[in-house]
Amino acid sequence: MLLENINSPADLKKLKPEQLPVLAEEIRQFLLETVSLTGGHLGSNLGAVELTIALHYCFDSPFDKIIWDVGHQAYTHKILTGRRDQFHTQRQYKGLSGFPKRSESEHDAFGVGHSSTSISAGLGMAAASGLAGAKNHAIAVIGDGSLTGGMAFEALNQAGHLKKDLIVILNDNEMSISKNVGAFSSFISRKMTGRYFRDLKKEMQGLLKNIPAIGTDILHFARKAENSLKSFLTPGSLFEALGFDYLGPLDGHDLVQLVEVFNNINELDGPLLVHVMTTKGKGYKPAEDTPDKYHGVGTFDIATGKGAAKAASKSYTDVFGETLVQLAEEDSKIVAITAAMPDGTGLNGFAKRFPERFFDVGIAEQHALAFAAGMAADGFRPVAAIYSTFVQRAYDQVFHDICLQNLPVTIAMDRAGLVGDDGPTHHGVFDISYLRHLPQMTMMAPKDENELRHMLKTAVCSGIPMAMRYPRGAGYGVELDSELKALEIGRGEQLLDGKDLTIIAIGATVYPALQAAETLRKQGIDTGVINARFVKPLDADLIMTAARGTGRVITVEENALQGGFGSAVLELLYDNGLQNVKIKRLGIPDHFIEHGSQAQLRKDVGIDSEGIAAAAMDFMK
Amino acid sequence: MLLENINSPADLKKLKPEQLPVLAEEIRQFLLETVSLTGGHLGSNLGAVELTIALHYCFDSPFDKIIWDVGHQAYTHKILTGRRDQFHTQRQYKGLSGFPKRSESEHDAFGVGHSSTSISAGLGMAAASGLAGAKNHAIAVIGDGSLTGGMAFEALNQAGHLKKDLIVILNDNEMSISKNVGAFSSFISRKMTGRYFRDLKKEMQGLLKNIPAIGTDILHFARKAENSLKSFLTPGSLFEALGFDYLGPLDGHDLVQLVEVFNNINELDGPLLVHVMTTKGKGYKPAEDTPDKYHGVGTFDIATGKGAAKAASKSYTDVFGETLVQLAEEDSKIVAITAAMPDGTGLNGFAKRFPERFFDVGIAEQHALAFAAGMAADGFRPVAAIYSTFVQRAYDQVFHDICLQNLPVTIAMDRAGLVGDDGPTHHGVFDISYLRHLPQMTMMAPKDENELRHMLKTAVCSGIPMAMRYPRGAGYGVELDSELKALEIGRGEQLLDGKDLTIIAIGATVYPALQAAETLRKQGIDTGVINARFVKPLDADLIMTAARGTGRVITVEENALQGGFGSAVLELLYDNGLQNVKIKRLGIPDHFIEHGSQAQLRKDVGIDSEGIAAAAMDFMK
Repeated sequence: MLLENINSPADLKKLKPEQLPVLAEEIRQFLLETVSLTGGHLGSNLGAVELTIALHYCFDSPFDKIIWDVGHQAYTHKILTGRRDQFHTQRQYKGLSGFPKRSESEHDAFGVGHSSTSISAGLGMAAASGLAGAKNHAIAVIGDGSLTGGMAFEALNQAGHLKKDLIVILNDNEMSISKNVGAFSSFISRKMTGRYFRDLKKEMQGLLKNIPAIGTDILHFARKAENSLKSFLTPGSLFEALGFDYLGPLDGHDLVQLVEVFNNINELDGPLLVHVMTTKGKGYKPAEDTPDKYHGVGTFDIATGKGAAKAASKSYTDVFGETLVQLAEEDSKIVAITAAMPDGTGLNGFAKRFPERFFDVGIAEQHALAFAAGMAADGFRPVAAIYSTFVQRAYDQVFHDICLQNLPVTIAMDRAGLVGDDGPTHHGVFDISYLRHLPQMTMMAPKDENELRHMLKTAVCSGIPMAMRYPRGAGYGVELDSELKALEIGRGEQLLDGKDLTIIAIGATVYPALQAAETLRKQGIDTGVINARFVKPLDADLIMTAARGTGRVITVEENALQGGFGSAVLELLYDNGLQNVKIKRLGIPDHFIEHGSQAQLRKDVGIDSEGIAAAAMDFMK
Repeated sequence: MLLENINSPADLKKLKPEQLPVLAEEIRQFLLETVSLTGGHLGSNLGAVELTIALHYCFDSPFDKIIWDVGHQAYTHKILTGRRDQFHTQRQYKGLSGFPKRSESEHDAFGVGHSSTSISAGLGMAAASGLAGAKNHAIAVIGDGSLTGGMAFEALNQAGHLKKDLIVILNDNEMSISKNVGAFSSFISRKMTGRYFRDLKKEMQGLLKNIPAIGTDILHFARKAENSLKSFLTPGSLFEALGFDYLGPLDGHDLVQLVEVFNNINELDGPLLVHVMTTKGKGYKPAEDTPDKYHGVGTFDIATGKGAAKAASKSYTDVFGETLVQLAEEDSKIVAITAAMPDGTGLNGFAKRFPERFFDVGIAEQHALAFAAGMAADGFRPVAAIYSTFVQRAYDQVFHDICLQNLPVTIAMDRAGLVGDDGPTHHGVFDISYLRHLPQMTMMAPKDENELRHMLKTAVCSGIPMAMRYPRGAGYGVELDSELKALEIGRGEQLLDGKDLTIIAIGATVYPALQAAETLRKQGIDTGVINARFVKPLDADLIMTAARGTGRVITVEENALQGGFGSAVLELLYDNGLQNVKIKRLGIPDHFIEHGSQAQLRKDVGIDSEGIAAAAMDFMK
C-alpha cells in the first residue's frame, strides 16, 4: 500500500510519476470505504482524486495556497495532508470537518462551505503575494456549477484586470449538484481543440488587414448574424476575453497529462485558467450512473450502492414540495424557484408537474430573489425555496427588491436551525435575526410538518413578502390535513395553559417545549406553552397576556440569541411596560456551532426538551 | 416649446421623428435648470436623454415594462411620464424620489437604487409575460458599470438559457460612477463593426470544414496562443455566447438611428442585447469634461459649473481617507479596497499615495469582502470602505469569509444611518441589526470625526474582524489628534454623570444626546450620557453600573429599533437580572424612511436633540 506511507505532500512527492495512478486507486477505495460508513460528499470527491494528487505533487502546499470552492471535493486533499488516520471521524461530532477549515490544517488555505468564493479569496492571496514579494502560487479550484454564482464572475473580472499570478482550475464535470443550468454552462461544454485555434488565428490575421470603417446597416447585419459567431466561440475565448490565459480542456483523470501541465504552469505568470474535465463519481459505477443521487450520501452498502433505510416520517422538505404542488393546482399564478437545488428543496415533483412554472436559476441566490420580485411585480406568486444559510447571499435582495416594494414573494427557508453534519457554514441559525428588522417582512415558522402546509397556504395567499423557516430532516409523522387553511397573520396559539411559567417557542422548538412542560409539571411547576407561529408580527396580545399571567417567560428558538426571536419578545414586553416580567431566553449562543448530529447539537446548546426543562428549573428557583 | 405639451408617453408619440432632437435639447435644458437648483444625479441623466425619448417613443409603457438599473438615469423618464411639473420637488422632502419607485408611477415598473438588479427583474417580468400569454416587452436598461455586479451576470446566464423575450439595453458610457474597472469593461469597450463579422463568418465557415481531432500538445499551444484570439473578440460575441442576440454598438445620441432600431426590435423574439454608446454629461461641457465630478451634484451655477461652497468642517469621509493614509505610512500591511467608489469613500488620496496597495474591484461588494478575506488570510490588514447600504450585498461574505474564519478585515461603513436625499434604498439603518448577531464580529461607531481616527487605528491593529459605521456628511469640526491611539475594545465612556436618567448613545447620536441632557438638566432632570462606542461587545460594566445607578435608561441609535443597539442593551440588562431598570429605546421605527434632509428625517424619527429631550421628558413622567 502506497497510501499508508503518505502523511504529507512531501511524502507524496517521493513517489515516481508512474506510481501515482496506483495511489489514485488506493485513495478511491479508501474514500468509498470511509464515506460508506460516515456519509458525506461522494461523487465530487471521487471525481477529484487525480486532480488533487497532481496539484499536491506539482505545487508546494502550504507555501502555495490551494483554495477549494465549496469544499465538497477536498477529501483527497485532507487525506494527503496528514489527516488520513482521522478521516473516519469526518462529519462526526468533534471529528474532522467535511469542508476545508483554516483551524484544522495549515494546508486549508481558506475555509469554505458556500459556493463561488474561491476566485475572490485566491485573488486576494495572489495580490498579497505580489505585495509581499513572495513567489508562491494561489490556486483556486472551482466547479463549473459554482461559476454561475455572480461573485465568481466579479472575481474573474477583477483578476483579468489586476494581472496577478492567479491560477484558476475549472473542475468541469458538466454538473454541479444537480444538472447544471444556464447559458454559460452549455457554452462551456462546447469543447474545441488547440489545433483548430492555431489555424483560426492565421486566418484571422489575414482577415484583420481589411477591417472596414464602422458600418451603418447594423440592424440588417444583426438579423443575418443570428446563429453565426456564437457557435464558433469556445470557453477558452471567453476566459481569454476576460484577461486570462486559457489552457485545456485536459482529461482530469489522466495523471500523466495533469502532472506535465501543472509542472509547466508552475513557471507561467499572470492569471491562468486551466480547464479540467472530470467525471463525477469516477470509478464507482452507481455514482457515475446517477451522480445526483451520490452527491451527498448517508451510509450505504458499497456492493449494492444502497443506502440505509429512510426515516419513517416524511421530511419537512417533502411535505413542502407536495403542498406547493397542491396549491399550484388551484392557483396558476404560483411559480417555484430554486437555486440549483431542485432535489434538496423538494421541488422535483413541482418541476415535473409544472415544468413551465418551475425555474432553476443555478447557484445564484441573489438573482433568484430579484427574479422572483420581477415575477411578483407582474402579478405572479413566486415561491423561492432556498436553504436558510444561502438566503444570506440574497439579504440585500430581500431588502431592496422584495420588502421595500412590498412584493408578494414567499421565501421558503429550508434547513433553518442546526443542520447537523455540515457544520457552521450550513447551520441556518441567523435568519430570524437578519430578517425580522426589515420593514414589511412577515416571518413564520411551523411547529410541525402539518402546520408547514397551512403556513405555505398562508404565504401564497397573503399578497405580501413572506419568509417561512423550517428545519432539516424528518417531521414528526403527524397527520397531514388535506384541506389547507390560511392562518391569521400574527396569531400564535396557546398549546398549554400554566400558572407558574410560560414557555414561548417557535418552529422546531415547540414540541421540545411541550415535552419540557410535561417534565416541569411533574416537578410541580405549572407550565404553559405558546406556539408563537409568527416571528413577525408577534402575537402581542397572546404573549403579553401570558406574561402578565405567569410573570415568568422562557423563549426558545433555534436561532442566534442576538437579535433573534427572544430578543423580539423582550422588545415587545419592554415597549409595553411589562419589565416586571422575568424572562429567560434560550437559543444559539454567540459563537459558531461546529458539526455533529442535530440531536447532539441541540442538546449542547440546551434547546432540546431536557435542556429547556433544566433551564426552567433553574429559572424558577 | 414641445416639452410643455408632453404629459405622457402618448403625447410624445404625437411628435414627428424630426421633432425629437428638438425635444431632447429642451429636456436637457430643463434638466440643467432643475438639477442645478435641487442637486441630484446629473451626468448620467444628461447622457440618457435621447435613449429615454426613443424608448418611450417606440415602446408602450406601462404595458411594456422599462426597468432602469440603479435608477440614476431615469429623470427624463420621469419627465416624460407625467411628472414634469413636480420634477422640481425631486429629492426634496415629500417630493418626487430621485429613483424610480413603483408607488410613484405606473411607469416605474420596478423600484431601484442599488445596482445590477434590472436584468433579474426584467427576466422575471419576461417570464411572467410568457406564462400569462401577454405580448408586452420587458426592457432592462443597464450601464456598463452595473454589469460588473455579479447578479447581472447571474441574470444574463439564466436569460440566455430561458429564451424569454427580454431586451437588455446596455447603456455604455465607459464609466459607471467613477472610472470603470475590470477586464470585462475594457473588453466591452473594444468596438468592432458589423461588416467585419459578416466577412469573418464566411471565413470561419470554410475553416470549420476541417476541424481536426483533439490534439495533445495543449501546453505548447497555450504558449503560442497568448495574445491571439482574445484580441479578436468583441462584446457582441460574448453576449452571443451567453445566448443573446446582439445589436450594436449604436450612437446613443442619434435619435433617428435609435428610433429606427427600436421600432424594428419591437418585432424580434428571444433575449436581445442592444449596445448603446452614450456620453456622460452630454451637452453640458463641465459635465462632459469631468464626469466623475458631475455624477452626483449639489446645487450649482450653470454658467460656471461651480457648486455651492462646501461645508466648513471636514466630512467623516475625508477624515477617514486621511487617517487611513496616515496609518498606512506606518504599516505596510494596510491595503484599501473600494467597490467602484474611490471618491465617495474618501480613498482617492490613498490611491494616489499607495497605488499598489489600493484595489478598486468595481461594483462588486461580495467579491470586495471575500477578496479582503483572502488578503487577510495571507497576512495583510485590508480596510474595505463601502457604504452601509451596499455592505448588505455582502452580508454572507461577512459571515462566511470574514467572521467564521476570524480574519482581520476592517469594514469601514460610510453613510451609516439616514443619508438624506437618496432615500430608503440608500439609508444605512440596518447594519447594527444585521451584523451584531454574527459571532466574532466587533462593531463600533464614533461620536465624532476625531474618534473615528482612533477607531480606525483600533480596527487595523486589532487582528480580528471589525466593522465601523459612521454617518454621511460633515463632522463637527472638532480638533483632530495627530497621534492615533488604539481604544480598548468593548469600553465605552461616561461623558456626563447624572442621578435621574442615563442616555446611552452610539455614533452620530452622542452629540444630540449631550445637547438633550443640557435641556433636561434645565428641566431639573439630572441626566447622564454614555458614549457606548462599541455595539459589540457592549461595555457591560459601564452600562450596568449606570443603569443600576439611575434606574432609567434611554438608548439612542440611528439604526432600526428591531435587533439594533437598544435591543442589545435590553438583552444585556435582562440577561443580568436588571429587569427592574426602566428602558426606552429611540431609533428608526419599523417602516421605511423616505427621502429628505438628514436633519428633517432625524427630527421625524425623534433622534435629534429635541426629540431625545422630549422622549426623556415623557419617559420621566
